[in-house]
Amino acid sequence: MDNRQTSLQFASENQSYFLNGLDQFVSIPSISTDPEHAKDIQKAAQMLADKLTSLGIEKVTLHPTKLHPIVTGEYLHAGTSQPTVLIYGHYDVQPVDPIELWDRDPFSPATQGENHFARGVSDMKGQVWATLSAIEAIMKTGDFPVNLKFVFEGEEEIGSLHFAEFVQAHKDLLKADVCFNPDAGMINAQTPSIIFGLRGLAYFELRVYGPAHDLHSGSFGGIVHNPAQVLADCISGMHDAKGRITLPGFYDSVLPLSDKERAELARLNITDEVFLKQTSVPALWGEEGYTSVEREGARPTLEINGMLSGFTGEGSKTIIPAWAMAKISCRLVPNQDPQEVLEQLKAYLAEKMPKTVRYELKYLSGGKASISRIDSKESLAYAKALEAAWGVAPVYKREGGSIGVVPDLQESVGVESILGGFGLPDDNIHAPNEHLHLPTWYRGINALIHFFYNLKREE
Amino acid sequence: MDNRQTSLQFASENQSYFLNGLDQFVSIPSISTDPEHAKDIQKAAQMLADKLTSLGIEKVTLHPTKLHPIVTGEYLHAGTSQPTVLIYGHYDVQPVDPIELWDRDPFSPATQGENHFARGVSDMKGQVWATLSAIEAIMKTGDFPVNLKFVFEGEEEIGSLHFAEFVQAHKDLLKADVCFNPDAGMINAQTPSIIFGLRGLAYFELRVYGPAHDLHSGSFGGIVHNPAQVLADCISGMHDAKGRITLPGFYDSVLPLSDKERAELARLNITDEVFLKQTSVPALWGEEGYTSVEREGARPTLEINGMLSGFTGEGSKTIIPAWAMAKISCRLVPNQDPQEVLEQLKAYLAEKMPKTVRYELKYLSGGKASISRIDSKESLAYAKALEAAWGVAPVYKREGGSIGVVPDLQESVGVESILGGFGLPDDNIHAPNEHLHLPTWYRGINALIHFFYNLKREE
Repeated sequence: MDNRQTSLQFASENQSYFLNGLDQFVSIPSISTDPEHAKDIQKAAQMLADKLTSLGIEKVTLHPTKLHPIVTGEYLHAGTSQPTVLIYGHYDVQPVDPIELWDRDPFSPATQGENHFARGVSDMKGQVWATLSAIEAIMKTGDFPVNLKFVFEGEEEIGSLHFAEFVQAHKDLLKADVCFNPDAGMINAQTPSIIFGLRGLAYFELRVYGPAHDLHSGSFGGIVHNPAQVLADCISGMHDAKGRITLPGFYDSVLPLSDKERAELARLNITDEVFLKQTSVPALWGEEGYTSVEREGARPTLEINGMLSGFTGEGSKTIIPAWAMAKISCRLVPNQDPQEVLEQLKAYLAEKMPKTVRYELKYLSGGKASISRIDSKESLAYAKALEAAWGVAPVYKREGGSIGVVPDLQESVGVESILGGFGLPDDNIHAPNEHLHLPTWYRGINALIHFFYNLKREE
Repeated sequence: MDNRQTSLQFASENQSYFLNGLDQFVSIPSISTDPEHAKDIQKAAQMLADKLTSLGIEKVTLHPTKLHPIVTGEYLHAGTSQPTVLIYGHYDVQPVDPIELWDRDPFSPATQGENHFARGVSDMKGQVWATLSAIEAIMKTGDFPVNLKFVFEGEEEIGSLHFAEFVQAHKDLLKADVCFNPDAGMINAQTPSIIFGLRGLAYFELRVYGPAHDLHSGSFGGIVHNPAQVLADCISGMHDAKGRITLPGFYDSVLPLSDKERAELARLNITDEVFLKQTSVPALWGEEGYTSVEREGARPTLEINGMLSGFTGEGSKTIIPAWAMAKISCRLVPNQDPQEVLEQLKAYLAEKMPKTVRYELKYLSGGKASISRIDSKESLAYAKALEAAWGVAPVYKREGGSIGVVPDLQESVGVESILGGFGLPDDNIHAPNEHLHLPTWYRGINALIHFFYNLKREE
């Protein structure tokens, strides 16, 4: 008999205390891509370290990297017969632009109805805080049933630049039986979900250079190749009429969807109407021959994340721009490799780019896709925990997003990740008015209490 | 015998006085496209009005329009047997962005070597001031040989929005035998030039709308049509492989180049090397079957003047942008009509744009192309004046730029424009570090003194 009920009781009595802690955490604008927020990054890392220490976690350390620190800690008092769970999280957040589309300050959290609004509140400070809250509920009501390790990074939103290197150099420190990573999410508030597949990422910046400076479009129009037009040609050629990506060899290493997996994804019953409602687009789009759910989770994509050239202010300016730029990223599936995609993009550009311009391609970040086991003891313990909190068994889903640390941990330390978390598809992560569904969040804390108790092995 | 030599003498002794006046004029940041500079526009108009008054010009008036004022004035004391010359100019300037590429403050004029730097110093405050300086040199040394009218607008750089309407409503005020418009330029500092053809313009803004807000590219990549990609497809399709514009019917009303005109343009002997040097591009580009000079002056074009979508800051942000925008403009030749081009672009978009997005097309401004007579008495008087100042006869050229007021004046008041001026192709107009070649400018003032004396008819 364990203290599970007492811990759940503690959680239900301390919801506002948990939320206050989260509010402090999300008030720190720890935007990892912006050098101006370096101090906030440091502050968020320190707040996490202090919280761990206050929970009785030992050897709490801020490890400097070439950019943002990684926080580790451990609690190894459950005995050697008990498993060790590595908790992964990131304390950095996405930028807030376009800031004018936010209904409130992104770093002054506020509740409206059942939702709580702030940058990072769903992705993923809320998920980190739910995990720490569940741990606190157990710590304050008895002995912790399993051993714990923690690794929190500050560069996830910019591609976990130094995480793989850190893991490689600290294999012993991170050694564990399983990693719990709550950076995935649920398909809707009623349906607990376990993510067993993640897409990888390869992120690029392409710059096309034309004339030495902006030119008068009257004096030079018809003589000089417009770099914005060249960039548009390049981008346009990256997809064919069937929505397939044309980079040479792009699909060569793509693992085809099995019939079994297609059947499982179909069972999720996420209709196009759901996606239409979430996005407000007039019609969906994508690669021919696949359903929306298949395209999102199990097929690679190429997206234009941003584009800039010439005059973009009010009114008119008659110039031929000196240069044009695009941010381009691919979501990858097993067994694609981001470095291979870089080579494929290079080959495409070498073939496509005309001699009338110069260009520059930068590889900004990337990571491989991953598929996790769903029949391990630990994964089943999480499934049972979700069922206990929601009253229904979880669905299993491949997710369109990318979590590069999952393959990093698998390859270096040999530890599998359980991908959970309580974010919802309409939380507006990476977008204005990011929010967290509070009833789901509180239920998630309960599920995590069950999870840690479920992990305890018979002695 | 006229006072020509005395006037020229005055000009040569007052170069620094003329330049000081120009410096005051270009120090006013009269950027017409930017509402924040409305006061500067007013200030520049007032400075012109004050200058005219100080020269003895009568009935000087600032006419309000829906946007920026038009300045007029007249001097009709040369007698009815003498021609009346309408002087056209604009006192507004282009925006200064990208400001970081300027080597100095655009509104603090400074000389370096033979060049004088400031926004508007070449286009066209310098040309307006050269004309007023020549008039002053004559006024101060004798009787003015011909009658003068003046019309200066403040909206040329944004498409002369209210000029046609003003001309239509003030036909008597502007009635003249000829218009002198120094907003054209020369092909190089050694070769005086008369522009006898101008391209027209049709300027658009196209916006493509996808999801209601930026989406996480992992969660929605492969489901939603990326608006930046749709815009790139649209733009890419606007040219074919031969560099021709694909808008339906675009070339239908294009006046073909005659053999005689092609021979005349070939005589200019502006080689591709000249254009390569002016632009620093690795190779030129344009419509197949035409030389660079032909493409620049006598063939229509379609340019992307600006493009914006999604995340364009440092680093990476994995979003599908909510929208994408392009500024698109066409340079037109006789007998194209900007309204027809608007319809052609609408037809193209209706055909090309997928059902997965919404879009919006705005027509921002436009004007027809024009061809001027080069054998009129007045045009020959200008040719003779240029030859007197430079020692060589001028070349005749069709110019790639657009001056919408030329057809406006021709259609409403029946007055032909002589297109002169002393800007050079590498003055960086509409671009950072705009400058004026001072020796050419002073020589231009001399040429204008000759011009006004040459216009005097035998009584």
